[in-house]
Amino acid sequence: MAILERYDTGAVARLTLNAPDRLNALSDEMLAALQAELDALRDDGSIRAVVLSGAGKAFCAGHDLKQMTAGRQSEDGGKAYFQDLFSRCARMMMSIQSLPQPVIAQVHGIATAAGCQLVATCDMAVAAEGTRFGVNGVNIGLFCSTPMVALSRNIPRKQAFEMLTTGEFISAERAADLGLVNRVVPEEALEQEANGLAELVASKLGVAVKIGKEAFYQQLQMPLDQAYAYTGDAMAQNMLYRDTEEGISAFIEKRPPNWTQ
Amino acid sequence: MAILERYDTGAVARLTLNAPDRLNALSDEMLAALQAELDALRDDGSIRAVVLSGAGKAFCAGHDLKQMTAGRQSEDGGKAYFQDLFSRCARMMMSIQSLPQPVIAQVHGIATAAGCQLVATCDMAVAAEGTRFGVNGVNIGLFCSTPMVALSRNIPRKQAFEMLTTGEFISAERAADLGLVNRVVPEEALEQEANGLAELVASKLGVAVKIGKEAFYQQLQMPLDQAYAYTGDAMAQNMLYRDTEEGISAFIEKRPPNWTQ
Amino acid sequence: MAILERYDTGAVARLTLNAPDRLNALSDEMLAALQAELDALRDDGSIRAVVLSGAGKAFCAGHDLKQMTAGRQSEDGGKAYFQDLFSRCARMMMSIQSLPQPVIAQVHGIATAAGCQLVATCDMAVAAEGTRFGVNGVNIGLFCSTPMVALSRNIPRKQAFEMLTTGEFISAERAADLGLVNRVVPEEALEQEANGLAELVASKLGVAVKIGKEAFYQQLQMPLDQAYAYTGDAMAQNMLYRDTEEGISAFIEKRPPNWTQ
Repeated sequence: MAILERYDTGAVARLTLNAPDRLNALSDEMLAALQAELDALRDDGSIRAVVLSGAGKAFCAGHDLKQMTAGRQSEDGGKAYFQDLFSRCARMMMSIQSLPQPVIAQVHGIATAAGCQLVATCDMAVAAEGTRFGVNGVNIGLFCSTPMVALSRNIPRKQAFEMLTTGEFISAERAADLGLVNRVVPEEALEQEANGLAELVASKLGVAVKIGKEAFYQQLQMPLDQAYAYTGDAMAQNMLYRDTEEGISAFIEKRPPNWTQ
Repeated sequence: MAILERYDTGAVARLTLNAPDRLNALSDEMLAALQAELDALRDDGSIRAVVLSGAGKAFCAGHDLKQMTAGRQSEDGGKAYFQDLFSRCARMMMSIQSLPQPVIAQVHGIATAAGCQLVATCDMAVAAEGTRFGVNGVNIGLFCSTPMVALSRNIPRKQAFEMLTTGEFISAERAADLGLVNRVVPEEALEQEANGLAELVASKLGVAVKIGKEAFYQQLQMPLDQAYAYTGDAMAQNMLYRDTEEGISAFIEKRPPNWTQ
Repeated sequence: MAILERYDTGAVARLTLNAPDRLNALSDEMLAALQAELDALRDDGSIRAVVLSGAGKAFCAGHDLKQMTAGRQSEDGGKAYFQDLFSRCARMMMSIQSLPQPVIAQVHGIATAAGCQLVATCDMAVAAEGTRFGVNGVNIGLFCSTPMVALSRNIPRKQAFEMLTTGEFISAERAADLGLVNRVVPEEALEQEANGLAELVASKLGVAVKIGKEAFYQQLQMPLDQAYAYTGDAMAQNMLYRDTEEGISAFIEKRPPNWTQ
């Protein structure tokens, strides 16, 4: 069994973190496997949505603390290794956001530290009832500074600050209220819910979703006038696609579209 | 009947989108009429709040797809027309935000695509129970890239992403939970609720609301220290208005203010 | 009795606004006392969390309108005084955010105008049932432009706009829903709740919380890639602290950490 499993069903790719004995920790090997699959998916025109899940009893418990501790043995006390590790981890997270296809986190058990960051980074998230979310590195003296980047772009700041400085967990229901996940379902319905959401997104015109996802994150970082100039161009281009012309014609004529994609 | 009706009551102007047979689509004519009224309101010192509503069974269903399709007949397949269209639409939306007077959307039926953008763009929004909100262009292959600019500045990002990529509607109650509207009331109370909110805002000192609205959107795009420098100057200026001096004196003396405005 | 009381319990400093007859208004004297205590706390290594509360029946009712009115007597009508006042107030607010230690607002009664800004500025806030929050300067012709800076960075924009332009109060429960406060408790449990939260934060490794708090506000203002570069460095540094090494080792060995701090 590989540390990261990929299984495609139609236009949906499912990535499963598969190190259940380590609560799917983001070890060097896991980060490399995730980066490799994301790089492969980027150019895979057959895939239009991705589900990210975890094997075993947890979604992901963050970095691999034993491996990090072993990294202290080098002459610099681990400094170069740690810098490289957080750089690789951030690159992987940003690759999810820059991936053309929407990525849906399917979350159960616990999602802590960089595991909570992974949820926050995915474009959407579905959680099982009973899932607990935390950025609790502070409990062991390691503030969740990089997870905070993703978390604080998902939920209001006082609530993010509380999670970060108290190290306390929040429930799936609270995560939904705050904006960290889209939906909460019973654990037995979790996979079906994530699949259903992925299939729904995958049923849309792929090229439209692709330009839309890219524009989503780009425009969030722009002042309003720039955001409108950028997205106005994106929409004008979108209008010129043959399949968009067909989609609009079909809508006007009240018939299903006949898309080439 | 004009495509856009304006009816003033005291210091409140009501603009009504009036193309009910087209679900008040933002056609070239509608955009031009809105722009013209916004330009007129900008310098109209007698108006201190604006309500924007739609005639017929929907608030606004977005762009006029038939007119857009007709635009494809030109030599460039519509490219120049589409670029100009989205530019005019964005200019109109930004004119709402830069208008000195607060603008309240009174929403019923459906608010989709650029119609949902219109709700997100208004300073406040009141919705009737049963109203459905969506940015569902993705269903016909045209991602709602420009509506996304306004929507993603109103609601949390995962929830915005879901609406944009699934094309699904949300209810008025959900819109209120997410921050897209301020209040939900029974449809029969909708107009009264919007009028009441507009009259309340219009009862305040106009010049204070004007500098406040401008500062609101300006400071949101600034780093904290710049935001404080900018708004500190605004407050110092505000203190020097004769009517503000009177308002504060009246408050201290526990009597109603005697404002010149 | 000083206008601002400080009482330390262990690693928690409690600051109490103590001008109850003026609803703890942020007068020149109160601003100076707060600034002085914040400056002292900044370098006080024995304090790891701060609670900010108000004596009497209100947390804080904003600026001192009588003192501001007296400021009009100068030759320039108060212009220089007002500019200086808002500059000093903004400096104090930013000092809370840049303080190494987390600051928790313990709020009861009313928190209005700059008093509401104080709540929004604190890193966390606990409110008593029955507390009312408002940015109601607009009612007397003085738009709450500087309070808006903090408020609009805590709650969604349409809800902030409504508070600012209608001048209406919101309840503690609504403040919690919108993100302005973390928790609402019965008034008799308020102090204990604020103390408990402060003690919890103070029990964490101080240096980790310190770099975390600074990074929290810094990275919020950065584009994503910069935010990750900055926080990745912060985490790599954090890993090298002796107490963090001990914290991680203790966690792996399932024992309590033996911290030097």
